Amino acid sequence: MNIEPIFTSPDVAEMSLRLNRVQAQMNEQGLDYYVAQNPDNVFYLTNFANYVHERPFVLIVPRVGKLTFVVPKLEKPHVNHCKVGEVELVDYFEFPAPEGQTWADRFREQFDPDPTVGIESTCPFQVYKEVPGETVHTDIIDDIRQVKTDYEVSRMKYSGDLAVSGFRVFMQESRPGTTSSHIASSVPGHVMKLALADTPTINPLATKVIAVFQPPQFSDDPHNFTDLNRSMTEGGPHPCIINGVINGYGTEVERTIFLGHVPEDAKKPYEIMMEARAKALELAVPGNSMHDVDEAVNNVMKKAGYGDFLLHRTGHSVGVTGHEAPFLAEGYHREIQPKMFFTIEPGIYIPGVGGFRHSDTIMTTEDGNVNFTPFEDSLEDMTLAI
Amino acid sequence: MNIEPIFTSPDVAEMSLRLNRVQAQMNEQGLDYYVAQNPDNVFYLTNFANYVHERPFVLIVPRVGKLTFVVPKLEKPHVNHCKVGEVELVDYFEFPAPEGQTWADRFREQFDPDPTVGIESTCPFQVYKEVPGETVHTDIIDDIRQVKTDYEVSRMKYSGDLAVSGFRVFMQESRPGTTSSHIASSVPGHVMKLALADTPTINPLATKVIAVFQPPQFSDDPHNFTDLNRSMTEGGPHPCIINGVINGYGTEVERTIFLGHVPEDAKKPYEIMMEARAKALELAVPGNSMHDVDEAVNNVMKKAGYGDFLLHRTGHSVGVTGHEAPFLAEGYHREIQPKMFFTIEPGIYIPGVGGFRHSDTIMTTEDGNVNFTPFEDSLEDMTLAI
Repeated sequence: MNIEPIFTSPDVAEMSLRLNRVQAQMNEQGLDYYVAQNPDNVFYLTNFANYVHERPFVLIVPRVGKLTFVVPKLEKPHVNHCKVGEVELVDYFEFPAPEGQTWADRFREQFDPDPTVGIESTCPFQVYKEVPGETVHTDIIDDIRQVKTDYEVSRMKYSGDLAVSGFRVFMQESRPGTTSSHIASSVPGHVMKLALADTPTINPLATKVIAVFQPPQFSDDPHNFTDLNRSMTEGGPHPCIINGVINGYGTEVERTIFLGHVPEDAKKPYEIMMEARAKALELAVPGNSMHDVDEAVNNVMKKAGYGDFLLHRTGHSVGVTGHEAPFLAEGYHREIQPKMFFTIEPGIYIPGVGGFRHSDTIMTTEDGNVNFTPFEDSLEDMTLAI
Repeated sequence: MNIEPIFTSPDVAEMSLRLNRVQAQMNEQGLDYYVAQNPDNVFYLTNFANYVHERPFVLIVPRVGKLTFVVPKLEKPHVNHCKVGEVELVDYFEFPAPEGQTWADRFREQFDPDPTVGIESTCPFQVYKEVPGETVHTDIIDDIRQVKTDYEVSRMKYSGDLAVSGFRVFMQESRPGTTSSHIASSVPGHVMKLALADTPTINPLATKVIAVFQPPQFSDDPHNFTDLNRSMTEGGPHPCIINGVINGYGTEVERTIFLGHVPEDAKKPYEIMMEARAKALELAVPGNSMHDVDEAVNNVMKKAGYGDFLLHRTGHSVGVTGHEAPFLAEGYHREIQPKMFFTIEPGIYIPGVGGFRHSDTIMTTEDGNVNFTPFEDSLEDMTLAI
């Protein structure tokens, strides 16, 4: 499958396509309005990436017609500069503001009487309490985001290509003594240089590349990156991570590497992780239930005796963020559809031995899945000479 | 006033002091529990800085006794590594998870029957709907955070010192042709080097330094930083900004600079901005109403004929974030108390001429305010030879 990477902003037709899908769902659910405050959902429908601070930015989607966006006056030209498609801006002076001039005053004026209004899971209480009429809790925009448009597929391809290029640098820089702070600056620096060369007007508010690793002794605690002074050591495992959003689209690639040699007690968990990964890559295809995929993948690891060393689901999606729904997770009973994206990252975490996890970003298609972050993964390739 | 900068983590006594203040307020308001999900409020009470993703982390504060923190199993060792003080961890397997094993199942089990529970303005709807009993909307933790402890004052001093050092580099690097991308990497790089030398175990999840400027032609649109390729030009104004959180404590320093010469039409708005700034520095003292300060400051600029060119309030606070309550804002009728922090940053934005704003981080005391980011501010000092 040949997918062209692109890095240009969405056009008006793309934004209309997204809005039409949201409005079709609103119609089906009998909603007059949908209120979105989540910056990722706002970005998805407007192309405006919010510098998140205490001033509310609230998007109102009517069942028919164009978007209304309540923004601080301060940001009106900024929003106008970034937005794509028809978005009516309603501005308020400041937050806080005198009575009658607050964001909530402007917000409440935008609704017809007695509306039925959809709200998202992340809706802050201070927004929820201003919503008029009857409210319905439904994550329509998040749900629409689960299946990518053709334009988004090409943007994801571009992000994936840059992440793979960044991971090549990550591997080159990996040797005993390499510090977390070195990787945290050099790898994102390389990716940003490539991105800026293509898109001098890259939106820094929609760009964030993280590159981190864990030395073996901390790697059974997979989200502990609390010390940038930690360094790589001979042996392993060292889980190495690139997760990021590059000019608006996310990607993730991870490999567990070894320096010089592979400790004996690391060989079997690596092998079983690879078996679980193969099972996930085989099953993460349209028609399967996400719950079933995770259960089957976990069973591979449980049968091999690692049931006590599992800490997370098989994968999450990426899109306008680096971490979002849908999830390959037990208890999440949705069916996989074409043009969904997942990270494939079953992991095993053994205190005293370490953490074992690769991650790739894949797209589902009717003809099987496509890896957007292709990179070697064998134990041989992951064992670097020192 | 001699304040020693410190950069060590809070101790158990500091965390108890904060919790006691929160619980005293809960008692006064008749709450049995308070639920906090805002990562900044969680950090304030636990010292755990959250890598924010879709898995909920929810803190439950009882009126008496120790904190309960509902966290994903994946993060339990990470939270244990970072937390200071007595915090009982309750873990759930994953998000999503099968029925009976979700975060909400664990969360609901933590309450006695028929409780009265306080919730914060930022409480997401998906958390709010799981809160049992009667809910009361009250921002207790945010309110307590408005007045700093002695420990926090010393941490703020440290952040301010580093920001000023960073601003010195910012000025040195400022010349016609300097790009936003250069400043965005070199200035935070300098600050991070200093911070890492002091604290090799700096928490990267509680550290984020932003350095940006606007060239004159975009500077009337004060939050538009959408193009990292923009560069400084001869003349001005160029508003230059450092805002950040350094190992858990925020700071802000901004200056409007000129390269080589000051355009004629920039002289008066600069002068009036300086008059408004002097008024703000004079009035931002204990006993005054925050509303009154902003009104008086705005009046300086309105009387000089700039009423149509005001886009924001006089200032915001900083603390465990770089942007938080309280606010020097019309409509915000709270009284200034000692040991509050404010940015002092009245601004004037004239299309075709540019933006004029300095910002300093000040602390209020009974003997007047103390500038934590002292830096030259005269037009002469801000006009750099080229």
